[in-house]
Parts: sequence; structure tokens; C-alpha cells
Amino acid sequence: MTSQERTREECAVTALLTDKYELTMLAAALRDGTAHRQTTFEVFARRLPNGRRYGVVAGTGRFLEALPRFRFDDAALALVADFLDETTLAYLADYRFSGDVDGYAEGELYFPGSPVLSLHGTFAECVVLETLALSIFNHDCAIASAAARMVSAAEGRPLIEMGSRRTHEMSAVAAARAAYVAGFTGTSNLEAQRQYGVPALGTSAHAFTLLHTSPDGPDEQAAFRAQVEALGVDTTLLVDTYDITAGVANAIAVAGPELGAVRIDSGDLGVLARQVRAQLDELGAPNTRIVVTSDLDEFAIASLRAEPVDSYGVGTSLVTGSGSPTAGMVYKLVEVDGVPVAKRSSHKESHGGRKQAYRLAKPTGTVVEEVVQMADSPAVEADGLVATALAQPLVRAGRVVADTDLQSARARVAAGLVSLPWDGLGLSSGDPAIPTRMVDAMRRA
Amino acid sequence: MTSQERTREECAVTALLTDKYELTMLAAALRDGTAHRQTTFEVFARRLPNGRRYGVVAGTGRFLEALPRFRFDDAALALVADFLDETTLAYLADYRFSGDVDGYAEGELYFPGSPVLSLHGTFAECVVLETLALSIFNHDCAIASAAARMVSAAEGRPLIEMGSRRTHEMSAVAAARAAYVAGFTGTSNLEAQRQYGVPALGTSAHAFTLLHTSPDGPDEQAAFRAQVEALGVDTTLLVDTYDITAGVANAIAVAGPELGAVRIDSGDLGVLARQVRAQLDELGAPNTRIVVTSDLDEFAIASLRAEPVDSYGVGTSLVTGSGSPTAGMVYKLVEVDGVPVAKRSSHKESHGGRKQAYRLAKPTGTVVEEVVQMADSPAVEADGLVATALAQPLVRAGRVVADTDLQSARARVAAGLVSLPWDGLGLSSGDPAIPTRMVDAMRRA
Repeated sequence: MTSQERTREECAVTALLTDKYELTMLAAALRDGTAHRQTTFEVFARRLPNGRRYGVVAGTGRFLEALPRFRFDDAALALVADFLDETTLAYLADYRFSGDVDGYAEGELYFPGSPVLSLHGTFAECVVLETLALSIFNHDCAIASAAARMVSAAEGRPLIEMGSRRTHEMSAVAAARAAYVAGFTGTSNLEAQRQYGVPALGTSAHAFTLLHTSPDGPDEQAAFRAQVEALGVDTTLLVDTYDITAGVANAIAVAGPELGAVRIDSGDLGVLARQVRAQLDELGAPNTRIVVTSDLDEFAIASLRAEPVDSYGVGTSLVTGSGSPTAGMVYKLVEVDGVPVAKRSSHKESHGGRKQAYRLAKPTGTVVEEVVQMADSPAVEADGLVATALAQPLVRAGRVVADTDLQSARARVAAGLVSLPWDGLGLSSGDPAIPTRMVDAMRRA
Repeated sequence: MTSQERTREECAVTALLTDKYELTMLAAALRDGTAHRQTTFEVFARRLPNGRRYGVVAGTGRFLEALPRFRFDDAALALVADFLDETTLAYLADYRFSGDVDGYAEGELYFPGSPVLSLHGTFAECVVLETLALSIFNHDCAIASAAARMVSAAEGRPLIEMGSRRTHEMSAVAAARAAYVAGFTGTSNLEAQRQYGVPALGTSAHAFTLLHTSPDGPDEQAAFRAQVEALGVDTTLLVDTYDITAGVANAIAVAGPELGAVRIDSGDLGVLARQVRAQLDELGAPNTRIVVTSDLDEFAIASLRAEPVDSYGVGTSLVTGSGSPTAGMVYKLVEVDGVPVAKRSSHKESHGGRKQAYRLAKPTGTVVEEVVQMADSPAVEADGLVATALAQPLVRAGRVVADTDLQSARARVAAGLVSLPWDGLGLSSGDPAIPTRMVDAMRRA
């Protein structure tokens, strides 16, 4: 088998990114005829993780790309033939999602109970999408939600996503995309540039400086010279491999005062940024920027606001959702043939019935409340407030109808952050920035 | 473009799962001739996360599968042509890793400073593998390390990995594999079965019970009947959609006392397990097992030791590494043309030079120390202890020479857990189970 064939084979698997129980439920439902009932499934988070004040919807575009590729090819069918009957296999062989999907636009903010995605179709066609939908939304929303906090903490300074090395190799690509949606400037990850057009950035690591070592010892200037010759004087030189003061001096000695930037990756970043800024100014390089990159999270970013830092590189805390690596989204059946249904459980709040959501804002644009009500209820009463319906048509009769442009999603996050009440951007643990009012949501199962 | 072609195109990307700086460093090093220096890069964790007492190496097999596929095809070259010169592009077009790789066998335990992977080759061929290697090891080791704690907490009861819905769709597959390495019995994820032979398990969710709702109300027995007819009486029925006591009664009424298992997914699992066990016994179903699955982590698993629980399903906490979603592995250049090199930084401990590691054990098999010394040092003095060299040859001259069988890796984790001193299996925060002694590790850069 050639490498190309192998790659293809290993990747033709969208439909198997699925929990087995979805297919056993499908088999049982096909057998007793309930598989063809019309259903609505909703994706929502019962709460925001970790005292967060808002969440950011991300992953919508990835889900809409994955949906048409959710097909059971011969390899997939061969695997599931092990535990499924002929009727179910025939259903899967012909599987195409033919229903409708509504959802919050990518980049929209969300709050507890916000129905960020709603799927409408037969039980059979909707139930098998649970894992794919939740994997995408739980990951991407977690990353985008953390990233947006970093963006607001950075107060306009550029942020670069560089966490690929700290997470699964394919999560890394999605994380770069989600961070970009939230307002990051670029990523270290090349595949994110290829697949999503996220600008890829980066110049060198300590290994490059260390490589320029001979039996006589290290030679930082040789490393800097090689980099400047290859990448030009506008590059970013990493100055903390040996001694930062000597590193900055070497950098300017080699590149001259037109050097683009220096990067600091260790130590007390605030102290060092001030010291390096003074040294650069003294060396006649006032336009050489300072990039900092060591173990930053939203709190460290905020604490550097007063320092002469020009941009931030964020790795681990970004790709791990800064303490909340998953968004807690669930995929719940809420309606069967027009009848609302819900689990009756002691501690998990569930609301049956197909829903619609509105966000209420003052005329100034500041949001005050999220209202989630039954889809067939009359439009929400706004009382001098502006009510905006949040769901967009994403898929109609199996066809993607929504725009999935990342620039629009970025604009939406930026607008969303501006729309929050003043304490909604607080980094400390707190209540959701606005309350969610569930109206008339549990009629009767 | 057909769906198949698109899938192939989107997946032929291994070489772009790379941070841009690796390729800019390559370009600069090719330009000044240092790219062809012989180097050693090592992968290790400076510390164990979160007070953990040991780590579990996982991902070795995935890295060895990915390595031969790390090639720059036309699509990849087209992307990087944007910022690379002709010499570098020609190098990448012909890229094949031709060096050697040594490493801890998959499933081996590791401790702070353990060199779990060492790559030997030119700077050029090694530097471009940083992101791929770290992504795989940081993710897979984090999951396997958390999973092993759950396995030891479960004291022999089976554990099922079911966290696919809480993490990126491709991480989910790798997480299922890593959990299996650590001793889990199976997974919910079908692709993990297809790709790695991890047994896939699962029967039904609340949606299936809720589906059996008519305008007259819910009908749990109809749902159970459909499931038993489709999957047989040995299936697992989910009994907590409405009322657990009624659910158990309905389950036995439909399936009879030969029912395989019931699953409880909410509430106080200890109390409910006892109550359900008593009810099942009373209904004449003493062999019907009890599966519990709600928000379990290693601590919850341990707290259920005294309860009549037959197996555990673990989701979120498994795929997020139970509080430590990344293993903190770094990829460091440690030797250039035979000269040890290391960053001199105030707070990050680095040891230059190519290393070898031994684990010292008492004749009983209990381990007492990890010794990491220079590769050219004489074998470690063992003082009545048994010294085992930990590195295995994984790749020789670019060819994979190691066995990557998952069953061997599983056996290795099981043996490793048995080899720890008695407090090494403690779930609370603590020191590493054994100390790591760095011998003669920094001669002179």
C-alpha cells in the first residue's frame, strides 16, 4: 500500500467518529419502527465552566463541513457489520442527513441553556450525529471561550496561538481555528493556515541558537546572523537562550536597529520586558518590538497590561481551554413527533420541546438577558428592549445554507464582547454576564 | 470534487501538523550549513503534573506510524513555498527521516526527567519533527497517565472509555487507544476499534427511551422491549430516564432475570447502586450487573470500591486527563556534533548531552530509583539492585524496528503499576513514586 493510499484509508472515517450506542439505538429503533419519528435534538451547555461569564460558539463551520462527509463507506460498513443487522446496514449505506439544522452563528456568545444547535429530522438521521456534533462543539467552544478572555485581557495587543505541541495533532488545527475566531492574530500551525487560512507565524526556537555551538562553545551571534540572512531583518530573534542582556546586545549587533522584534520565553516577563525595552531604546532600536511567550494565560496577559509588551504568544493554556478543556455541551432529544420530551432527573436541568432563543439588548446595544422559549410561542415581549433572534438556518433538507466565513465569525465575537455589561468581561469567577430566562419550556412530556 | 477525494486531500497533511518556526529554522540552518550537523533531541517532562506520582508513556506506536508518513506532498509544498527558498523546498520535497530513534517502550512508566524519546540525526531531519512528536506524546501520555490511576482505583473492575463526545473528534480516537493501553476494557468509539482494535462497547442513551413517547406519555417498557429484541437479553438497559426503581422493575419485567446489566447515569451512584442491587436480587436477577457512568474520575471510582458496582464508564475526566490535559513534555536539542548543549535559564532545569536511563529495583521487583546518565557513561552501579535499561531501539536508519503491539503495552502498564512502592499508587497529590537521579548530566556546553 502506498503512503497516499494509506493516508486516504485512515482518514475516510468521519462516520466512525461515533459512539457505538448510536448505531445500536438506530438498529433497535429501525426494528420497532420508531426510527422514522420526527425529532428535534438540541445542543446546549447546562452551565458555563469554572465561573466563566460567557461562552463563544465555535465549531459551527467545522460541523457543517463534516456533515456532508458523514457517510458509511465500505470500510466503515465492514466494521459495523459485526454487530448490526442487514436492515441497519442498508440504512447506513444510504445514509445522508436530509433534515434541517438551525443554530447560533459561529462567533456568537452563548450562556447556560442557549440552544446553540438544533437538528430536525428523523430519529435515525439525527441520533447518529451526536458524537460528531458534540466532539466538535465541546472542543472548539472550549478553546474559543478561553481565547476570547485572552483577547479581551490583551486590550488590542496581538495574540499568537502557539499551542500545537501541547495537544493532539488534529485538535491543534481546530484550536488554531477557534482562537482565530475569538480574535487571535495568527497561529504557529501550518495546517491551520492551509485548511482555514489562519495566518501562520513563527521564526525560531532555542534549538536554533543551541545548534550554533562548537567545541569552543556557544555562538549566539552566529545563530542570529544565520536567521537574519535567511528571514530578513524584520524577523523575531529569541534572546533568552543564555543571558538576556547579552542576547539583546547580540541581536542588535547582528541585525541593527531595524530588527523586527525580540522574543522572551522565560523569567519574570514584566521585569524583563521593561529591562529589554530600556536596552533596545538605548541601543537606538525604539521600533524593535517585544514578544513574550512563557506559560501565558488570560491572567498573566492582563497582569502585563502596564508593561512594554507588543505581542503575546499563548500555548498550553489556550489549547487546554485555560482550565476548562471541554465546554460541557450535551445533545438532547427534546421533541418526538411534536411532543416535548425530557429526562426527569434529580440534578440535571432539562427542558423538553423545540426552542428558540432571543437576546435582549438596551437601545445602546448592551445586552441584558437571554430568553429561551418554545419555538411555537409568540415573539418575546421586549419592553423597550431590542430582541434579536439568535438561531440562523444552517442546513435545509440536508443542504448547507449558511455562510461559514471565519472573518464574519471574528467580527461577531468582537461585537459580542462589546455588547456585554461592563462586568461581563471580568476574568475572575462570577455569574454569567446575563441571565438566561427559560420560558414555558416544560409543558408536558 | 467527490467526497472521497476531498477526504483524501484534507487528510494528506501529516507534514503540515508542524509549527512554522521549524521550517524557518530549517531554512536558516540550510543556508549557513549547520543543518547537517549531527544532533540528538530528547523528549521529556520536567515534572509530573498536578502532584502525580508517575506517568505512563503512550503514543509511541502512533508516533512510529506517523513518522514514515511525514512527507511534504505537492499541497504542502505549495503552502510553504510562500515563505521558503528553493533550497529548503527541495530539501522538504525529498524529506525522509533517516536517523535513529530510541525510547521508552509504550506502556512504560516515566518520571520527571525520563528521556522517553531520543532522536538522532541531522538537525534538519530532527528539528521538523518537534510538533508532531510533542503533540502525540503530550496528548497520549496525559490520557494514559490519568487512565492508569482510574484503573488502579477500580481494583480490577472493568472500565469503559466513553469520552469521545467531550473532546476533539480525532483526540477521541487517540484517547480511546491510550486508555486501552493503560488497562481500560473498551471504548465507545468505533474508529478506535477500526484503527487500533480497541473493543467498542455501548447500547443506548436516554434519547432512545425518550423516543418511545407518544401523546399519551412516555413508555419505558416499549423502549426496553425494542432494545432487548434488537440486542438480546444480555444487553445493558439504561434505567434512570424517569424513576430508577420503576426503571429497574420495567427492565426485569421486559428482559427477565437474565438481563445482562443496568446502567445508572445520575444521582448518588453509591446509594443508587446499593438500592438497585437489592432490587435486582429481590427480583431474582442476582447476575444482572450494574454499570455506573456519571461524571466519574479516579476519586469517584475509588469512593465506589465498597459498593456493588460491576463496571464503570468514564467520559469527561478521562479525555481531559483528569485535570492535566497535557503531559508537559518538551523536545530539546541536547547534543550537537558530540557536544552537549543546554539552555541556561533561571527556572527551567535542562541537562545537555545524550542520555540513557536505568530503573533500579529491589530483587522483589519494587522499583527504587530512576537514574539518567550520559549515554557514554559506564553502566550504572546497582548495589544489590537490579538495573534495567529503559530505552529501546525504535527506529534505525529511518526504518521502524520496534514492535508496537498494544497488548504488550497493556502488559507493561500492568507490570509497572505492580512495581511501584506501596505509596506510589496513592491518588492524592504527592512526590513522584521514585526519585530521578541525574548523573553527570551537564558537563560543559
